[in-house]
Amino acid sequence: MSNIINKQIQLVSRPAGEPNADNFKLVELSVPELDDGQVLVRHHYMSLDPYMRGRMNDGKSYAVPQALGEVMGGGTVGEVVASRNPNFAVGDTVLGMGGWQQYRVVDANQRGVLQKVDTRKIPLQAYLGVVGMPGVTAWHGLVRIINPKAGETVVVSAASGAVGSAVGQLAKARGARAVGIAGGADKCRYVVEELGFDACIDYKQHPDLKSLSQALKEACPDGIDGHFENVGGMILDAVMLRANAFSRVAMCGMISGYNGEPIPLVAPQLILVNRMKIQGFIVSEHMADWPEALAELGAGVAAGTLKYRETVAQGIEAAPEAFFGLLKGKNFGKQLVKLI
Amino acid sequence: MSNIINKQIQLVSRPAGEPNADNFKLVELSVPELDDGQVLVRHHYMSLDPYMRGRMNDGKSYAVPQALGEVMGGGTVGEVVASRNPNFAVGDTVLGMGGWQQYRVVDANQRGVLQKVDTRKIPLQAYLGVVGMPGVTAWHGLVRIINPKAGETVVVSAASGAVGSAVGQLAKARGARAVGIAGGADKCRYVVEELGFDACIDYKQHPDLKSLSQALKEACPDGIDGHFENVGGMILDAVMLRANAFSRVAMCGMISGYNGEPIPLVAPQLILVNRMKIQGFIVSEHMADWPEALAELGAGVAAGTLKYRETVAQGIEAAPEAFFGLLKGKNFGKQLVKLI
Repeated sequence: MSNIINKQIQLVSRPAGEPNADNFKLVELSVPELDDGQVLVRHHYMSLDPYMRGRMNDGKSYAVPQALGEVMGGGTVGEVVASRNPNFAVGDTVLGMGGWQQYRVVDANQRGVLQKVDTRKIPLQAYLGVVGMPGVTAWHGLVRIINPKAGETVVVSAASGAVGSAVGQLAKARGARAVGIAGGADKCRYVVEELGFDACIDYKQHPDLKSLSQALKEACPDGIDGHFENVGGMILDAVMLRANAFSRVAMCGMISGYNGEPIPLVAPQLILVNRMKIQGFIVSEHMADWPEALAELGAGVAAGTLKYRETVAQGIEAAPEAFFGLLKGKNFGKQLVKLI
Repeated sequence: MSNIINKQIQLVSRPAGEPNADNFKLVELSVPELDDGQVLVRHHYMSLDPYMRGRMNDGKSYAVPQALGEVMGGGTVGEVVASRNPNFAVGDTVLGMGGWQQYRVVDANQRGVLQKVDTRKIPLQAYLGVVGMPGVTAWHGLVRIINPKAGETVVVSAASGAVGSAVGQLAKARGARAVGIAGGADKCRYVVEELGFDACIDYKQHPDLKSLSQALKEACPDGIDGHFENVGGMILDAVMLRANAFSRVAMCGMISGYNGEPIPLVAPQLILVNRMKIQGFIVSEHMADWPEALAELGAGVAAGTLKYRETVAQGIEAAPEAFFGLLKGKNFGKQLVKLI
């Protein structure tokens, strides 16, 4: 294999505030010969996800910081192109945490490091999105924390994104009213017309708390019973002003504060006044939920009832810019990088 | 009975900021003759509780606002002094929501309006405190929301108060480490030496977040797994800086914001980083817990293992000042007004 060159992107410095291209470095490496038990995977797609921003920092967080001078971590799907492992054959389609690179040599005997995936009814890259970590994230927060009853109202921020789009559709499937918050008329139209949410608020039209809160009042005439938070900051403040008694907030992300901006919660007394529950979670700590979640998500995709959208950047070199765009909401649906 | 005069305190105006004596009015009324089914209760003690401050406001809250021109509501214990109800005899000791007044005529056929209490092993006034609403409040927040495991660390603010003192002792009984936060050296000494907490922090010695957070670090070397919040504001911010992964916060009160001061939560992203659960509750909405809670609390008081302290003001006229003192932490343990 020594004639194969693997391009990979490493993290070489930590951002002060917004990340930029200087934090990354493109490196070309020769792919080594396989040892016994190893397989070589060629990545077709790599995933870009907001949590990666957190891992670029060095501070206390839920995730171990990404090491400097090593390939950026992340989910990948691809194809086995060489194998010295009896459980994997050339041509197998696989899911793994292959990172920001074109190829990966994997010791495939490590349990769970590489999973074969069936692409007959589900497209390969969907295993990085709605039938993967983002989908299970949506499922866990919605089902285990919000647990909506039929007729309740569920709000989700970043509603057109990989996680948010699944949250609303799973809520609708449970008989709840789904209201999205997204950036821009196009995204809102998609959320309502294609994903079937009951309403969607374009936060760009509501630059202050009062205006956003009023928009939520109109979109949620019976108040808010559940909220799935991907953004934080003013969006969470506005939701809390419309929260019903016994409402539940699943805290999945606070992208508004990822660059270190202060994002105080203005009125925590509403937690008491409304007897709210606010709960943070990380999907990788709830592995017991994955089979049930993936069964529902996969069935929905196979049947065409669970919809999703992708933004695909082309080539490993495009990954940093695509990632910066994701952090600013420039993507539309799941952000992927196509590597072949 | 028309020769009996009942002194009662009514709410006559709503406070703008701190409440003051002008918000209340002392009224003298004749006690009417009893109708069939009614009993006349002479109150021995009335309860003063922080939640009453919330009811003085008109805004949205969990409690219905206290009506103007009517007797202030609140818990009372006393003795039946006349009865036209076959279920109550003169001399029965009873618990009810009799309000800020010396006497009350009650239609005792209304279910739950008046409860007979046994004073052979438990002092009458304890039914307003540790064997009453404050005790069950402590029990529900600790057991149902924090649910500490042996070896975990539980922090409680207003630790020498009616609720806080029970929280720490119930936590200790479950094998947890209990750390109080209270105002002043005397209260802290009591919390540790008499109630048996492992440590207590005098928040008056720590005027800023950094200092309070450092004190919590020293008192909680293994971090904080559960927190019972009665105060809010800087105390909650400081606790969150020391919160462990999967920690639970029971939001019972936010007395720091009762006069309308803004009390933003400075770092809500810690809910996500630490996968915390923050949950508000009101004990009256969890009636199913009362029998189990009262059984444990009553047994502890009867056995002398569950300790508590009272501050007793004398006479109905003293109620407003005692209430203002309670809101400023001038009381030590359960604040009562003795009416006989």
